[in-house]
Amino acid sequence: MELIRSIPDMQAWPYPAQAKVGFVPTMGFLHEGHLSLVDVARRDCDVVAVSIFVNPAQFGPHEDLESYPRDLKRDLDLLESRGVDLVFLPEAATMYPKGYRSWVEVEELSDLLCGASRPGHFRGVCTVVLKLINIVSPDRIYMGEKDFQQLTILRQMTNDLNIPVEIVGCPIIREKDGLAQSSRNVYLSEEQRHSASSLYRAIMQARKMVANGITQSVKLIDEASQILIESGAELDYVKIVSSDDLSEQDIVEAASRIVIAVRFGKTRLIDNMLLKA
Amino acid sequence: MELIRSIPDMQAWPYPAQAKVGFVPTMGFLHEGHLSLVDVARRDCDVVAVSIFVNPAQFGPHEDLESYPRDLKRDLDLLESRGVDLVFLPEAATMYPKGYRSWVEVEELSDLLCGASRPGHFRGVCTVVLKLINIVSPDRIYMGEKDFQQLTILRQMTNDLNIPVEIVGCPIIREKDGLAQSSRNVYLSEEQRHSASSLYRAIMQARKMVANGITQSVKLIDEASQILIESGAELDYVKIVSSDDLSEQDIVEAASRIVIAVRFGKTRLIDNMLLKA
Repeated sequence: MELIRSIPDMQAWPYPAQAKVGFVPTMGFLHEGHLSLVDVARRDCDVVAVSIFVNPAQFGPHEDLESYPRDLKRDLDLLESRGVDLVFLPEAATMYPKGYRSWVEVEELSDLLCGASRPGHFRGVCTVVLKLINIVSPDRIYMGEKDFQQLTILRQMTNDLNIPVEIVGCPIIREKDGLAQSSRNVYLSEEQRHSASSLYRAIMQARKMVANGITQSVKLIDEASQILIESGAELDYVKIVSSDDLSEQDIVEAASRIVIAVRFGKTRLIDNMLLKA
Repeated sequence: MELIRSIPDMQAWPYPAQAKVGFVPTMGFLHEGHLSLVDVARRDCDVVAVSIFVNPAQFGPHEDLESYPRDLKRDLDLLESRGVDLVFLPEAATMYPKGYRSWVEVEELSDLLCGASRPGHFRGVCTVVLKLINIVSPDRIYMGEKDFQQLTILRQMTNDLNIPVEIVGCPIIREKDGLAQSSRNVYLSEEQRHSASSLYRAIMQARKMVANGITQSVKLIDEASQILIESGAELDYVKIVSSDDLSEQDIVEAASRIVIAVRFGKTRLIDNMLLKA
């Protein structure tokens, strides 16, 4: 496994001719969610590249950039064990040098849901992913569906900007009690960790209601919110949106998705699922 | 010479292996300024691609998108005569389909000079150039120095976003009386066309003063402005800026550049030149 720290070295990397390059961009502190993306890329592609970069541009001024969990040695051991070929490890000062001024924005989609409580977040995500695409030159990018809004926005960006890369969305990996795996789960106290299964329970309750023929979003949202509030979560949003363009839907359709963001103390958790099986 | 109208056809174009691809993006109605870029590309590269696309995203709501001059047949004859290999001719509806939402912006530089009187203009330029790069996949892009701000902004964009393309700036091509060639010169009445040589005369006067040891920007700007006003021009700006970052300079230095934008009636003209030979 090769470790590449410089942008020019990565851009000049001599991939074998015709090799399909699969890429998994991460912020490190890897969990089985990330590793499942690596596994899919390993199965699909000739070369698997992973980046580890805690991207300052996607954190707000009062967010957890400084405290974001890091464990590079463990990350590299995990990636090597899963057969990764290249790990790209840039520094913030080379990704955003003095005088850096260029930003990519996907309008409207970036202001909804998580964008409403995290202004500038998706601008930072779009910009770093475009930079990483230009640096790593992948054919396919593998991303989890946990941040479904991010996946939707990046699909829109690559389509709109004619970026010749395919974005492959992969299923959420969950703990035994249904909590979606996230690097931020480590912030939770034991009690919060226990309570946090409420996101999954809320989603499953909404799906059960839909299976029983209840399709008014307001009823599903009320019930899901109740479960979350009872668990001690502070709601950011509970919504039912189209999987295509994240627009809110009053009545559940084939591609309707429940999307949730809550806080337990300072820790923000998100989850989502299609409502129809 | 191949004419390519669809984005997927252009993206799948089978360039010969190892071929250096030179690209000249244009809005058509070609003049010797454009053709000089083609000539340089032809000399430097194995494949020369030109795009003709009047990009709606870089026109303001009250600007000349509708009346922008067009003559495709003449353009294609000229390009064929200069040995161009490929001409990419996309439609606005495929470049900006319904639901288009992604934009690239170079902050600060886009708000100065022409950006101050044309809000959104450089956002439209950056976005279309990024799209064209992703569609045409050139190694080098050839652009004239007439829009020096555009050149500066696009260099910043390609550096910031790690776009693996080299931007080659080429000298302004002028009419016999010094007027910089521009597709918009056709808008000028005979009298305005005559008066419009004042841009060149103003620049040459400033250069003469610098050669004579006058380096205070305010004096050069006053004298240049006088020449422009006497010719009937309405000033947008006359400034002396750094060629590196377009910052205004009080005293002329090695890389100082005089930049001018004026109107004759509805027609906006720009010009610029290094002040030291």
